[in-house]
Amino acid sequence: MPQLTSGEFSLVYNLLSFTFAAMLASFIFFVLSREQVAPQYRGAMVMAALVVAIAGYHYFRIFDSWNAAYTISNNAFVSSGKPFNDAYRYVDWFLTVPLLIAELIAVMGLALDKRGSLTARLVIAAAAMIALGYPGEIATSTMTRAIFGTLSTLPFLYIVYELFVRLGPVINAEAGQAKVLLRNIRLLLIGTWGFYPIVFMIPLFFGDAKNATAVVAVQIGYCVADVLAKCGYGIMIYAIARAKTTAEAAKAPVAAGALATPSNR
Amino acid sequence: MPQLTSGEFSLVYNLLSFTFAAMLASFIFFVLSREQVAPQYRGAMVMAALVVAIAGYHYFRIFDSWNAAYTISNNAFVSSGKPFNDAYRYVDWFLTVPLLIAELIAVMGLALDKRGSLTARLVIAAAAMIALGYPGEIATSTMTRAIFGTLSTLPFLYIVYELFVRLGPVINAEAGQAKVLLRNIRLLLIGTWGFYPIVFMIPLFFGDAKNATAVVAVQIGYCVADVLAKCGYGIMIYAIARAKTTAEAAKAPVAAGALATPSNR
Repeated sequence: MPQLTSGEFSLVYNLLSFTFAAMLASFIFFVLSREQVAPQYRGAMVMAALVVAIAGYHYFRIFDSWNAAYTISNNAFVSSGKPFNDAYRYVDWFLTVPLLIAELIAVMGLALDKRGSLTARLVIAAAAMIALGYPGEIATSTMTRAIFGTLSTLPFLYIVYELFVRLGPVINAEAGQAKVLLRNIRLLLIGTWGFYPIVFMIPLFFGDAKNATAVVAVQIGYCVADVLAKCGYGIMIYAIARAKTTAEAAKAPVAAGALATPSNR
Repeated sequence: MPQLTSGEFSLVYNLLSFTFAAMLASFIFFVLSREQVAPQYRGAMVMAALVVAIAGYHYFRIFDSWNAAYTISNNAFVSSGKPFNDAYRYVDWFLTVPLLIAELIAVMGLALDKRGSLTARLVIAAAAMIALGYPGEIATSTMTRAIFGTLSTLPFLYIVYELFVRLGPVINAEAGQAKVLLRNIRLLLIGTWGFYPIVFMIPLFFGDAKNATAVVAVQIGYCVADVLAKCGYGIMIYAIARAKTTAEAAKAPVAAGALATPSNR
């Protein structure tokens, strides 16, 4: 690890702690808010809770690893000799990214026969995207980083294609607020997921994966992207489930009454 | 413990962390998803949650033990002098393997008079299988390892016999998706449980239980087997319970309505 100033070290340290707190709060929110949505959308809320629980665990470990990787010497933060374990992020994404895709499909409420094969294809593409990124992340050569970064983009482009070309008509068939929210969450997914490759490429601009500014910028970038793509995304999933619950309750007043009774909580 | 390269040490380190995260996520999923199945199958979901909670605790400890057993010296990972505690896995299996058997019998929904004695016989066989394997695992002599490995296989074969010969007709009497899933989970159980003895035998191929490649391969094998036999298996138990809940609700519309009532959650 490169030598850091006190300010650089603390910025990453506090941002990792902030991200853990955001994951913890989101987990509690998603667990407690399941009851506010109709039963058919609770699966999506459970997946949102799983994503932030897994991420919370990994941020706890990343925070500890960051701390252990540095020691103070002459007012500067220097490498303690222990490695900073970047692999936590990839293990996290390997588990959470397929869940984020499954979460979106679950909240759409597609017919069961269509849902299975679509979920399987997108989940495999998401896992491939992460697995192909990892060899680039741990590479010391920027060329290897660029090659695996490019390979990892291919399954990402396939996911974008499925979300726009295949799922476009499904989203357009929705009504009112749910339609607007589904369009927005698709943009959030593509925007945040598109942000990760930019962070991944930061070391290329510096020509060195162990440049101090590059190391700090990569940590900041991944934290911000994770908060938006996991907590923000989950809150939008909740908003969509709420909008669809309300719309469906308006259509079928009996079911709506049952859902609104106190004993239901 | 043998000397390891940074890559070998990190592979096991990250796989142990991954397995903990998988157990944590599965625990949350099984607890939150109980409500999606009929009351008679919730016992199976509770057992699935217990299994991954026990395993999650042990993986937390195994991760710490792995970390403590090594220290960095000249860029290589060498023994710190502290032992790596393999016994955690056996304590874990001693508790979880009988639960996995009980989980399967519970989701089958056998008549209570048949269930009790069958569960007792299989639980005792499962506990004997683990207890007989342990002296082999800690043995430094490969001969002792082979002897206890063979003894441990006898109760395993008895379990296979019960699952196919005795429970075969019960599974064949099921209908539709539940029948297919029950046949698949029986194969998953036998496939994953059959994988453990193969991992157990790895040191025999190297002629030395403390060979670096053997140590790394054993850890990878047990992690993969545990994720499949506990998380994957539990997800299949949930799928079976869901399929049976749906099928039973279709047969008895009143009960189906009851499932949707608030008091049932």
